Amino acid sequence: MQCGLSPIVGFRFSLHPMTNDFISVIKGVLQETDTSNVWMHTDDVSTVIRGKQVHVFNVAKALTLHAAKTGVHVALSGTFSAGCPGDSAGDAYLDKGDEVANNDLTKQYVSSQFALYPMNNPNYMDVIYREVDRAKERGVFNESMHYASGIHGDIHDVFAFYEETFTRARPEEHKHLVMTVSMSINSPSHGGL
Amino acid sequence: MQCGLSPIVGFRFSLHPMTNDFISVIKGVLQETDTSNVWMHTDDVSTVIRGKQVHVFNVAKALTLHAAKTGVHVALSGTFSAGCPGDSAGDAYLDKGDEVANNDLTKQYVSSQFALYPMNNPNYMDVIYREVDRAKERGVFNESMHYASGIHGDIHDVFAFYEETFTRARPEEHKHLVMTVSMSINSPSHGGL
Repeated sequence: MQCGLSPIVGFRFSLHPMTNDFISVIKGVLQETDTSNVWMHTDDVSTVIRGKQVHVFNVAKALTLHAAKTGVHVALSGTFSAGCPGDSAGDAYLDKGDEVANNDLTKQYVSSQFALYPMNNPNYMDVIYREVDRAKERGVFNESMHYASGIHGDIHDVFAFYEETFTRARPEEHKHLVMTVSMSINSPSHGGL
Repeated sequence: MQCGLSPIVGFRFSLHPMTNDFISVIKGVLQETDTSNVWMHTDDVSTVIRGKQVHVFNVAKALTLHAAKTGVHVALSGTFSAGCPGDSAGDAYLDKGDEVANNDLTKQYVSSQFALYPMNNPNYMDVIYREVDRAKERGVFNESMHYASGIHGDIHDVFAFYEETFTRARPEEHKHLVMTVSMSINSPSHGGL
C-alpha cells in the first residue's frame, strides 16, 4: 500500500471521431503521435497510457491534436489518475528523460469540462474551488455547471492548465488524485471564444 | 453545505455515435426516449440529467439502448454523482413518482468500464474492492485493468449492476459518491461474452 508514493501518472481515455471512417482516423492518429515515452494498452472500450506526468500529458495532447487536425468532430473522454493505493508499480516507463516527444504547436480551439476528485482528503472541496479560481485567472474558464467546470481555449493553454492543476491538487499528504476531462473539438455546437 | 443529504442523483454524459450522421442519431435518440422524469440540460460538450436515482438510471439506459438500436458504433462516457457538498438543491424533479418511463427490454450486448470514487471516506478502497467482487458474483465482470474494472453483458444486467453499486457505495455517513462509466456498443473490437 505504498503506491501512493509512486510517481506514475495514468490516463485512461477514449477518442471518438464522429465519422464513418473512425477506424482510419484512430489509426492515423496513432501513427502520427510519438508514444514511445509512455506505456500504452488499448482494449475494446478505452486506451490507457502510463508514465511520467510530463509525457502522459504530452501524449494525450498530441493524440487529441492530431485527431482534431482531420477536421472531423472529435470527442475525448478520460480520467487522469495518480497515487491510488491499489495501483501496481509496473507498466510505466519511468526511466525516460523529461524531454517531450511531441512538439506540434498548431493552434486549435477546444471546449472541455473537468472535475477533480482528491481522494481521502477532508479538505477536497477547498482544493476544487481553488483550481476553478485558477482557471479563471488563467483565462481558460468557460462556465460553471453541475458536476464539472467548463474550460476552453487553445488546446495548448487548456492542456497546460490541466497539467498544472493535476500537480497542484496532489500534495504530498494526499497523493491519490483523480481528474476527469471531456473535450469536444470541431463541434457544430461550439460557441467559441 | 447540507446538500450531502439531498436525494438528487446526477449523470453528466456524452453519447458519441461514430458516424457522419451523428446529429440525426442523437436527435432520434432524444425523440424516442421519455425524459420527462428528469431535469435535463445539454451544452456543447455534454448533457446532464438530474432527479431521483431510479429515473436517472432508467433514462441513461434508455438513451443508450435507443442509440445502440441504430446499429451504429456508439460510445457512452459519463459520471454519476450524488451528495456533493457543493451541489445546489434545484434542477431536479424530486416530486416524480417511482414508476419508470422507459421499459424497452430489448437485449443488447455492451462492454463497459467503471470506477468508483467514494469521497472523503478513509475506507474507500474497501468499498471499491467490495463492489468489484459483487460484479463477479453477478456475472457481469469482464476483466481487471489499471484505473477501472471491465463490466459487460446485456445492457439491462449491466445497468442494474451499476444502479445497485451506486446505492451500496453511498452509505449515510459518506454520501458523496462519484462513479465514472465508459461504454462501447456495436464495436468492431468487441470480443463478446
